[in-house]
Amino acid sequence: MNGSTAATPVEPCDFTVFGGTGDLALRKLLPALYLRDRDGQLPDGFRIVGVSRAEADDEGYRVMVEAALVEHVPSDELDATVVRRLLGRLHHVTLDVEDVADWHRLHERLKDGAASDDVIRVFYLAVAPALFGPICDHLDQFGLATERSRVVLEKPVGTDLATARAVNEAVGRVFDESHIFRIDHYLGKESVQNLLVTRFANTFLEPLWNSHWVDHVQITVSESLGVGERGSYYDRSGALRDMVQNHLLQLLCLVAMEPPTYVDRETVRDEKLKVLQALRPMTPDLVDRDTVAGQYAAGLCDGAAAPSYADEVGHTSDTETFVAIKTEVQNWRWAGVPFYLRTGKRMSERLSEIVVVFKEPPHPMFPHSEGTSEANRLHIRVQPDEGMRLHMTAKEPGPGGIRLRPVSLDLSYATAFGQRSPDAYERLLMDVVRGNTTLFMRRDEVEAAWTWVAPILERWSEPTHRPRRYPAGTHGPFAANTLLERDGRSWQETGIE
Amino acid sequence: MNGSTAATPVEPCDFTVFGGTGDLALRKLLPALYLRDRDGQLPDGFRIVGVSRAEADDEGYRVMVEAALVEHVPSDELDATVVRRLLGRLHHVTLDVEDVADWHRLHERLKDGAASDDVIRVFYLAVAPALFGPICDHLDQFGLATERSRVVLEKPVGTDLATARAVNEAVGRVFDESHIFRIDHYLGKESVQNLLVTRFANTFLEPLWNSHWVDHVQITVSESLGVGERGSYYDRSGALRDMVQNHLLQLLCLVAMEPPTYVDRETVRDEKLKVLQALRPMTPDLVDRDTVAGQYAAGLCDGAAAPSYADEVGHTSDTETFVAIKTEVQNWRWAGVPFYLRTGKRMSERLSEIVVVFKEPPHPMFPHSEGTSEANRLHIRVQPDEGMRLHMTAKEPGPGGIRLRPVSLDLSYATAFGQRSPDAYERLLMDVVRGNTTLFMRRDEVEAAWTWVAPILERWSEPTHRPRRYPAGTHGPFAANTLLERDGRSWQETGIE
Repeated sequence: MNGSTAATPVEPCDFTVFGGTGDLALRKLLPALYLRDRDGQLPDGFRIVGVSRAEADDEGYRVMVEAALVEHVPSDELDATVVRRLLGRLHHVTLDVEDVADWHRLHERLKDGAASDDVIRVFYLAVAPALFGPICDHLDQFGLATERSRVVLEKPVGTDLATARAVNEAVGRVFDESHIFRIDHYLGKESVQNLLVTRFANTFLEPLWNSHWVDHVQITVSESLGVGERGSYYDRSGALRDMVQNHLLQLLCLVAMEPPTYVDRETVRDEKLKVLQALRPMTPDLVDRDTVAGQYAAGLCDGAAAPSYADEVGHTSDTETFVAIKTEVQNWRWAGVPFYLRTGKRMSERLSEIVVVFKEPPHPMFPHSEGTSEANRLHIRVQPDEGMRLHMTAKEPGPGGIRLRPVSLDLSYATAFGQRSPDAYERLLMDVVRGNTTLFMRRDEVEAAWTWVAPILERWSEPTHRPRRYPAGTHGPFAANTLLERDGRSWQETGIE
Repeated sequence: MNGSTAATPVEPCDFTVFGGTGDLALRKLLPALYLRDRDGQLPDGFRIVGVSRAEADDEGYRVMVEAALVEHVPSDELDATVVRRLLGRLHHVTLDVEDVADWHRLHERLKDGAASDDVIRVFYLAVAPALFGPICDHLDQFGLATERSRVVLEKPVGTDLATARAVNEAVGRVFDESHIFRIDHYLGKESVQNLLVTRFANTFLEPLWNSHWVDHVQITVSESLGVGERGSYYDRSGALRDMVQNHLLQLLCLVAMEPPTYVDRETVRDEKLKVLQALRPMTPDLVDRDTVAGQYAAGLCDGAAAPSYADEVGHTSDTETFVAIKTEVQNWRWAGVPFYLRTGKRMSERLSEIVVVFKEPPHPMFPHSEGTSEANRLHIRVQPDEGMRLHMTAKEPGPGGIRLRPVSLDLSYATAFGQRSPDAYERLLMDVVRGNTTLFMRRDEVEAAWTWVAPILERWSEPTHRPRRYPAGTHGPFAANTLLERDGRSWQETGIE
C-alpha cells in the first residue's frame, strides 16, 4: 500500500524539537516528518534540529532517529532514499536549559546554514511544562522569537486553571498568541476534521442538529491499555486532566459549535470557545450527581490477565483512570440535550467515537409492523477505522406485513478513499510550519476548559472521594451505566463495527 | 440462492383469473402464486381458476402453466414438489363473457369443492377494460360478488377521465370501493414500500423534507426496450397514459405526501389524494412550457441497432414514447420546489429512480478548499438493484489544505438483507387475498390523476402537436434537458452506481 499523496511543499523551515531524543519525538514527530518528506512536502532548506541533554552529535542522533523510523514507520512506507534525505536534514544540539553556553551553541547552529535570515523557525517544546517559560525566555534573549517563529506546546498545558494561566503568561510574554500552537493531536485526526466538513459542507445535518431532533450525544474515548510506563506522570494527573479537559471537550466543541463564518483560523476557535463558556457550570451537587470517577482493578484484557492500577503504579491511589460526565450546552440550539462524556483506560476496547442519537419518530405509524426499529443514530468513528455510519430503520424485504429492521448507511474512510489516513501529527506539524492555528487550542479555550473542570477537580480532591473500582477489560464502573439509565438511555457499546 | 422466507399463510381462497391464459397471467401472476406457495403462504384450500376463451380442460391448463413456470421462474427457485402442488390447485373454465351457459359452468366450478360457502373469492380481471363492467355484472347475477369477494383491475383503468369514470361506475355498481383493487405493480416494489418506512419509521428525513431544504425532486422511469409486441395497444395509449398517469404520479405521491396517521389502508390513500389535488393544474401555456413529448427514432441500444418507433408499429405516428414534465405540489411543505418527471422507452438504460436534491449550504464555509463538493442528494433506486444512496461531501484524507470530495452513504438491499426481493406481484396478490387496499389505487386517486393529466392530453391531441424525435438509446429529446437547464439544474444521469 503506497499512501503517498501529492502535497504542496511548505516553506523552508528550521524545525527545532526540544526533547528531541524523547519518546514523543522518536515515536511520533520524526516519523510524521519522514512521511511528509516522503510525500514531497519538505523543501530543500527544511532542517530538523533535535535539542536534548543527551551527549550526541549529529551523526549519533541520525543513528538514533534511523532506528526510530525503522521501528515506528510501517515497513511498506519506508523508502531508503527518503530515509537518507531525512537523516541529512537532522542535527543535534546538546543543551541544558540553564546553561547559557549551550544556548549560544544552539543559536550558532540555527544561524549557520539557515535557508535565509528570516527562515521560519518552529520550536516544538516536547519537554516538561515547567521548562516552557525558561525556554521561551532564552529564545527571546537570543533573538530567536521573531515574527516568523512559532512555538508548539505539548500537553499538559498546566494541571489546573492557575498553572495553565502561569504557563500561558510565561509563553505569552515572548510569543504573540498567533504564534503559539497548543497541540491536541485529536484535532488533527482525519475523522475529526471530516466532522467539520460533514457538518458544514453539507446541508443534510444542519436541520437535524439541535434540541428539536437530537435526543442526546455520547462521546467515548476508551483505551484497552493501562497506564504502563506513564504511571508516575499519570498518577499525578488522572483521566479528567489527561483526557477530558482537552480531547473530550474539544470533540464536544466540534459537535456542538455554531457554524463559524469560515472554517478557517479564529472563527472556528471563537465558536469552540462559546461552547466551552456555555457548558453548564458544575457545582458540588452536580459533581456528585453527574460525574463518575473510576479506577481499574485487576481483570481480563484482550484475553490476558491485566493487573490493577495500584499494581501498575506500585501503590494504592485515588487517581481516576475512568471518567463519565453528563453535561449540557446551555444555549438556544442545545438546551435540554444531554452530552454524555466517557473515557477510561483498561476498557474492553480501544475506541473513540461520537454518537449523535436522534429522537424517535413522534408517532408510531406502523402499529401492526413486526420486527424492531431503533432511534436514528449517527456514529462518527474517530479511531480506529475512521468512518461514519448512519443507523436507520428499513423495511425487511418480504411479501408479508411490514417488518422493520435496523440497517445502516456506511462511509468507511479506507474504502471510500482507498488510501492511508495520515497520522494526526503529520497534518498538525505542517499546519505549524504554515502558521495555521485552526486546529490548535487558543489560550482562552484552554483556560475556559480548566475553568469548567475546576469544580470537579475540587470536589474529587476531598478526602472522602474515592474512584469506583471496575475490572480491567470492562466498560467501566456500573455507576457510569446508571448515569444514563436513570435518564432512560444507555451507552452505545457496539460501535461502528 | 434460496430466497424463501417464513410467511404467514393467507386464508383459503378461490383465486380466479380472467385472462388466465394471457401473457400477464402466465408471465407474472402464476409465477408469483408459485413463489408464495413455495414459501408456504398458500393453504390447502387455495384454488386457482383460470378463465379464458381457450378450449382447455384442467389438464391442458396445467401443462400450459407448468411450461410458463419453467420459463418465468428462476431455475434455482423451482422445486418439483411445489410445482406439483401448485398445478394441483389449478382449474380452467372456458368462458365467453356473453355466454350465460359459460357463466353457469363457472358458477358451478366455484361452488364445487370450495373450501367453504363464504370462501374468499378473488376475481382478477386481466382482460380488456371494456369487459370489466360486463364481468362484474355477471359476477353479481351469479351471486359471486359477496362481502368476501374482491375484484382486481389491471391497468389501464380508462384512457382518460371520462372512460375511467365509466369503468369505476360499472365496477362500483357491483363492488364496494373497499373490495376493488386497482393494481399498480410499482406500489408493490420493495423499494417503494421502503420509501414509506424510510420516511416514517425514521426521524432523520422529516426535518429535511420540505421546501426549506429540498431544491427539487426528480423521478425517472426509463426503459431500454421499445414497444415490441405491445405496439397496437401502445400506439393508442402513449407514455403519458401508460406510465405518467399511474406509476410516476404514484411515486410522486409517496415522496410528497404528508405523514398519514398510520401507514395502513385509507390514511395513506387520503394523503396521496391530497398530493394529486395539490399538483399545479396544467393550462395550455404550462403544457407548452413545462412538458416535453418525444418519440424514439432509430438508434443504438445496448450496442445493437434499434428500429424507430414508426418501424416497430408499422406506420408513422404522433404517439409519444417519452414524457418529461415539470410540476409543483402547491402546498405549505412543497411550494416552490419543482418536481421533474421523466419516462421513456428506448432510453440508454433501464432505471427507475427517485432523486431528492437538497439545497447547497447557504454559505461557503471552506473558501480555500480544493476539490469539489456537490449538493446533497438522496437516490432511491426502485429498479434494478433496489437500494438507497445518500450523496454527501467529505474531506479527502491528507495533510494539506482541505480537499472536498463527493462520497456516499450506501444501503444496498441485496447486501443489507442478503435475500431475494420478492416480485411486486407476490406481495400485491397476497394483499388482495388479505383485503389490504393500502398499496392499491382508490377511485378518487385514479380520477384525480386523470383530471391532472387531462389538459396535457388535450393540448397534445391538437393537430400541430408532434413529439420530438430522439435517437433510441439516448436520454430522450434535447428539450427534456432544457426543461431543467433553464432552471439551472440537470438530470441526474449517473444513477446510484
